[in-house]
Amino acid sequence: MKINENYNNLTESYLFSTIAQKHGAYKAAHPDKKVISLGIGDVTLPLAPAVTLAMEKAVAEMGVKATFRGYGDSQGYAFLREAVCGYYARKGVEISENDVFVSDGAKSDLGNILDIFDGGNTVLIPDPVYPAYVDANVMAGRRIIYTQGSEGNNFLPMPGGEKADIIYLCSPNNPTGAVYTREQLGEWVTYARKHGAIILFDSAYEAFVGGDDLPTSIYEIDGARECAIEFCSLSKTAGFTGTRCGYTIVPFETGLRNMWLRRQSTKFNGVPYIIQRGAEAVFTPEGQEQIKENIDYYMENAHTIARGLSKAGVWYVGGQNSPYIWMKIEDEVIKKSDYKSEGTSWAFFDFLLENAQIVGTPGVGFGKMGEGYFRLSSFGDRDDVIEAMDRMCKIL
Amino acid sequence: MKINENYNNLTESYLFSTIAQKHGAYKAAHPDKKVISLGIGDVTLPLAPAVTLAMEKAVAEMGVKATFRGYGDSQGYAFLREAVCGYYARKGVEISENDVFVSDGAKSDLGNILDIFDGGNTVLIPDPVYPAYVDANVMAGRRIIYTQGSEGNNFLPMPGGEKADIIYLCSPNNPTGAVYTREQLGEWVTYARKHGAIILFDSAYEAFVGGDDLPTSIYEIDGARECAIEFCSLSKTAGFTGTRCGYTIVPFETGLRNMWLRRQSTKFNGVPYIIQRGAEAVFTPEGQEQIKENIDYYMENAHTIARGLSKAGVWYVGGQNSPYIWMKIEDEVIKKSDYKSEGTSWAFFDFLLENAQIVGTPGVGFGKMGEGYFRLSSFGDRDDVIEAMDRMCKIL
Repeated sequence: MKINENYNNLTESYLFSTIAQKHGAYKAAHPDKKVISLGIGDVTLPLAPAVTLAMEKAVAEMGVKATFRGYGDSQGYAFLREAVCGYYARKGVEISENDVFVSDGAKSDLGNILDIFDGGNTVLIPDPVYPAYVDANVMAGRRIIYTQGSEGNNFLPMPGGEKADIIYLCSPNNPTGAVYTREQLGEWVTYARKHGAIILFDSAYEAFVGGDDLPTSIYEIDGARECAIEFCSLSKTAGFTGTRCGYTIVPFETGLRNMWLRRQSTKFNGVPYIIQRGAEAVFTPEGQEQIKENIDYYMENAHTIARGLSKAGVWYVGGQNSPYIWMKIEDEVIKKSDYKSEGTSWAFFDFLLENAQIVGTPGVGFGKMGEGYFRLSSFGDRDDVIEAMDRMCKIL
Repeated sequence: MKINENYNNLTESYLFSTIAQKHGAYKAAHPDKKVISLGIGDVTLPLAPAVTLAMEKAVAEMGVKATFRGYGDSQGYAFLREAVCGYYARKGVEISENDVFVSDGAKSDLGNILDIFDGGNTVLIPDPVYPAYVDANVMAGRRIIYTQGSEGNNFLPMPGGEKADIIYLCSPNNPTGAVYTREQLGEWVTYARKHGAIILFDSAYEAFVGGDDLPTSIYEIDGARECAIEFCSLSKTAGFTGTRCGYTIVPFETGLRNMWLRRQSTKFNGVPYIIQRGAEAVFTPEGQEQIKENIDYYMENAHTIARGLSKAGVWYVGGQNSPYIWMKIEDEVIKKSDYKSEGTSWAFFDFLLENAQIVGTPGVGFGKMGEGYFRLSSFGDRDDVIEAMDRMCKIL
């Protein structure tokens, strides 16, 4: 038996393990200091009452023969696919139930979707980016080209000259928090249609868009149904990171819906009934109101972080329609520190931990273009966020 | 963008849709007749009380900030991996927690595991077989060779002359219900080690083995740790077909554990916390007692079917340590019927439906070697099974 040799081309990521190790070492050396983490990429508020109520009811149904459910449709129960369509309809986007695939999360589908594409396709990935896009394509041996985010384009890279077949976009972006405008997405759709490319649109943070007339779905753009698959998740929207449910839209017009259905019915057996009932509750009026409270809580944290950075005169993107803030590390900060050994992002990590007892995420962990930048997250406690920004303003 | 052209080589399966259509048409034409299904491949008894209790508690935890759980380990919570190891230990098989991967079901992992192997490997698949093995390999463009089950080998095919790299085995088997002995699995392990092949051992029905000193894990065989991955499921064991949890054992000794971990942490985010708590409860003493009652119920149905077939003088395998019974269709039965148009299995399907109002599964739906055979399932109601066998004995 021969293994898939492409796995040898994967680079090990030590990002989060190195953060945890440095954080642990500092705490051990300074047991009296309170370290605050603005590095959390996970939600901290509990599930909404509407969701737990629906799941309690579903658990009870599963314990009684008359209401017990065995195998469901691998594409998801109709009740949840209808609820998803209702959610889109309220945004003014018409989606057919047949185009909705209930998933166990955007990460699974963003990787597994590659099954239906030829290995010879060229993949375009923004840099910096959520690392799973790159790894899933390295595993399949595909050629990867990058489109570069920078201060110049506000970390919203646009199509360049090179032809790509598969294009990953993430908006609101992880890690930068930057959000494409309708016009910008329109350019991407035009580019994809011109080149016969497919856009894999990661919309996991769409619920954090709160105004500014920004798009929350690529299907708000004319022509996107022919060239885009959209990946959505309840992980951040409704605190489902440990509950595992999302949905993927594969429009009939892409010509790929039947292939994806065949892939899923061969290698997937659907999301638990209990979890799908919980997900359905997210889309009820009570559910929507309850999750909005949580999103508002995180967004107030994000605004606190953004205000602090503005006050300190630091350049950043994100934090307006996203739980993430992507800040630039000013040269002077690094110059006045001795932490130069591992590159700017890591030097700033050390500087922030030692001088303000704050943990964040070095931008270089998300790609080469992330060097010199730093990700702050708004998923922590309100009081901690306020205290962290007070501390940070004093040293920047 | 180019699609994965291998998908064009998939054959559409109309097995269950054709069954449903014929069943529906018969009922519409004969509304007064009671049709009994012995074709069910899904459980019908509800979840055990220990399981629903554990899930209720977990749902409540998820609604409170102090006990809320976000992202878990993509490999599964330690509490569940420990419970799985305890289950193996009680069978006398030592498994390390690090080798256990909690999955959303055997079907997902049996397909996804192929990611870590080269596309040029030759795959050996028994015929008849669970159709997902074939489809997952056709999608990847792998060369497939078959090992043939027949009355001569009691539908337990053994290694032949041809060299294979990846070998699928399923014991107790779906669809035949046949179970390999320790000696037979030993031959497969010897063959795999000789050829440097890997065995993908589907052990989803292991809980139905109830004596006869038959193996319930391939790791009961010396040397299997070096050459076998075992796929287990709670679907049939504990009625989890709609609850979705299983586990896959990738021993360190295979040299593949780190690759699978990398695959899963890139394209999977773990099983819901709530579901993992339910799965943990399956392995408690109460859970084990409760699921045993359900398995005993199904097995009593299987024995009823087997006794009926023996009485009618019909050749069959399965039904002793498996919920499935695989019966031979005698030529005389077909001769006295007019249902010859679609091959023996389908002719018998029609014969049984029209003359005894029983629905079963034509063997040809599981592969060429299934032609002339028929699968009966024990997942129905006791009274229905008894009545069905009374009817069947009268016409065979």
